[in-house]
Amino acid sequence: MKATIITIGDEILIGQIVDTNSGFIAKSLDRIGVEITEMISISDDKQHILDTFEKLQDNVDLVLITGGLGPTKDDVTKKTFCDYFEDELIVNQKVLAHVTDLIEGFYNRPITQMNKDQALVPSKATVLHNKVGTAPGMWVKKRNTVFVSLPGVPYEMKYLVENEVVPKIIKEYSRPYIIHKTVLTYGQGESMVAERIEAWEDSLPSFLRLAYLPSPGRVKLRLSARGTDKEFLDAELEKHLLSLAVIISDIIVGYEEDETIEVMLAAALQKQGKTIATAESCSGGSIASLIAAVPGVSSCFKGSVVAYDTRIKTAVLGIPEAMIEEFSVVSATVAKAMALSVQKMMQSDYAIATTGNAGPSKGDSDAEIGTVFIALATPDEVIVEEFNFGQPREKVIDRTVYKSLEMLQKEIFKNVL
Amino acid sequence: MKATIITIGDEILIGQIVDTNSGFIAKSLDRIGVEITEMISISDDKQHILDTFEKLQDNVDLVLITGGLGPTKDDVTKKTFCDYFEDELIVNQKVLAHVTDLIEGFYNRPITQMNKDQALVPSKATVLHNKVGTAPGMWVKKRNTVFVSLPGVPYEMKYLVENEVVPKIIKEYSRPYIIHKTVLTYGQGESMVAERIEAWEDSLPSFLRLAYLPSPGRVKLRLSARGTDKEFLDAELEKHLLSLAVIISDIIVGYEEDETIEVMLAAALQKQGKTIATAESCSGGSIASLIAAVPGVSSCFKGSVVAYDTRIKTAVLGIPEAMIEEFSVVSATVAKAMALSVQKMMQSDYAIATTGNAGPSKGDSDAEIGTVFIALATPDEVIVEEFNFGQPREKVIDRTVYKSLEMLQKEIFKNVL
Repeated sequence: MKATIITIGDEILIGQIVDTNSGFIAKSLDRIGVEITEMISISDDKQHILDTFEKLQDNVDLVLITGGLGPTKDDVTKKTFCDYFEDELIVNQKVLAHVTDLIEGFYNRPITQMNKDQALVPSKATVLHNKVGTAPGMWVKKRNTVFVSLPGVPYEMKYLVENEVVPKIIKEYSRPYIIHKTVLTYGQGESMVAERIEAWEDSLPSFLRLAYLPSPGRVKLRLSARGTDKEFLDAELEKHLLSLAVIISDIIVGYEEDETIEVMLAAALQKQGKTIATAESCSGGSIASLIAAVPGVSSCFKGSVVAYDTRIKTAVLGIPEAMIEEFSVVSATVAKAMALSVQKMMQSDYAIATTGNAGPSKGDSDAEIGTVFIALATPDEVIVEEFNFGQPREKVIDRTVYKSLEMLQKEIFKNVL
Repeated sequence: MKATIITIGDEILIGQIVDTNSGFIAKSLDRIGVEITEMISISDDKQHILDTFEKLQDNVDLVLITGGLGPTKDDVTKKTFCDYFEDELIVNQKVLAHVTDLIEGFYNRPITQMNKDQALVPSKATVLHNKVGTAPGMWVKKRNTVFVSLPGVPYEMKYLVENEVVPKIIKEYSRPYIIHKTVLTYGQGESMVAERIEAWEDSLPSFLRLAYLPSPGRVKLRLSARGTDKEFLDAELEKHLLSLAVIISDIIVGYEEDETIEVMLAAALQKQGKTIATAESCSGGSIASLIAAVPGVSSCFKGSVVAYDTRIKTAVLGIPEAMIEEFSVVSATVAKAMALSVQKMMQSDYAIATTGNAGPSKGDSDAEIGTVFIALATPDEVIVEEFNFGQPREKVIDRTVYKSLEMLQKEIFKNVL
């Protein structure tokens, strides 16, 4: 089963917003064995939309469209649907009642004509009811292709994908199994890893596909299996992952199904009944906010001190001014002291501390731009590492965050084994 | 001048990574008057890439391609280029010297065959030198269309766009002016705003285009002008923005050229010589990390206490246990106390505090999921507002962050006027 995702909106094409909807839809469909052939972002222009529909018609089974459904954009997308399906707009009473409830009840203001117009849907469309917003989803079939229109607001789109679109696809279509397993490696670059596993890669059967996902400092290897016999695929995946592990056991730090590192870490900490806190300078709270975004994390996340200003390191974390003067604020000694201080202050089992110079100009130290010290306090010791993450600023912050989480992951893995 | 952006990579099509490269390229080209017709994400498959090139050939002036340039993916993209341009790969000595320097000098390990292969480029290509990585960019013209291939690693792509691609386009092509002005409104929904300005919108000349960019709690109105006479466009934009301001002066909170709210806030604080600190519970450090990501922010950003665990509010911020027990941890009183505490602790002029229940389940209070209190301490007073941001968790955190920044922006604007 093949699908194409279209996002409509000039704001995407001028780079004012980044399209995160397509990625969410792709992930949700990939999980149930739907293959995404393309993702396309186009303008709000009716003819452009019609041309794109025409090109996809009968070439894919499913076209998912997001955006173009806010009250001021209704017209374009809905009228395009009417044109394309030779249809007309009718009032859907269930949608009208819902919109009225939401506007008059929750927002406590009279309903406007534009709100009312949101209840207009093409007569041939199956309405996908949007409980978390006012714009309904629509599902219309033309010959061999189903066109599904979804609102552009991310959480509304997500609600409809999870509660309406995916269940409907599972019910109405048979699909192959697609299973991904990801191997996390650490410490060697993409070309190095590729050379080591070349022979193994060449021996993979055709239903297994390998992808390299390099990111600063680490490489993920994703092995994907595709077929109709789930048991067979699982067995084959396991066999080939085992033979891979023999070749590069020194750099494999873990496996993941489909989770981010912060989700895995939170789960591992909770399982072990351990807690974490952070003291952040150059990372500015990014580590804390990533951990805090994980649902249910309050049982293992204590909090953070973001000591951005050098004086805050003294005033709040109690790092002696003399230490900062002797070793410089960007130093292993200060990183270590910060980790120990926040560990004690928040009574956490683990604590991460960062101090560095993210650039673009030098700050309160002479350290080269890109220099970062990361300290990890465990219940037994403090580990400090020095890095140079180069430039620009966003790369330095990003690598500081992920390197910190990797250091924590290594420690936690160690305790499990 | 028209351009299309292509991103190549299976990891995008299965939703494992979100394509942020296209947005960056689009923004950079839009600024210099290049119109983006489409953004397309496709798989690593050679035939698929060739078909896409063929469809775009002579229909757009420029095709920008990212991804598919890592050492293990070199083969596909470069060989596709050779096929499409009837060309062959040759060693580029300048690239080889650079790759050797980078690997042997910076990474301090011997160069591998795969590294060496990165210096292979199609003979007809103009090489765009990538000083921040090993994969070179390539610029090849076929009839009326230029194809530019860029690495997929975001900061390498950005380096090449800013330092090579944009200057080359400016030098070689004449383009119209595209000017965007964005009006920030606050407090009314998209449909409400649209109804109020309907007559104004209908009277806009054809070279001005209006777009609504709604996000939770606020609506941005973007007015875009396109033409060859920059002075005329500037004057027309100003005229129509003034007449718009007369109609909705009650909800306009600001204007932006092309900046995010945190960049504008940092600039305003620095101009006034004021500082900010945050005390975050439900937002988990997201406000701090957003502010800390702004370059040069150290002169106005002191730091933050992320008091995620309720006990940390007492232990670190000194919020009395009795107060938490009497008013609950999610309350105006506690928010206010948090803001005052961090303002004092960090000796900042302004302080933002957040406490709420982001869900998915209830935490240390009985407050309904989605309830958030935001307090803003100014040099003169403390303002507290209560919100219900509904669900899900990511929406609650996101709205807490932006509402906080908006409250601060309102205060700072007030001081300027």
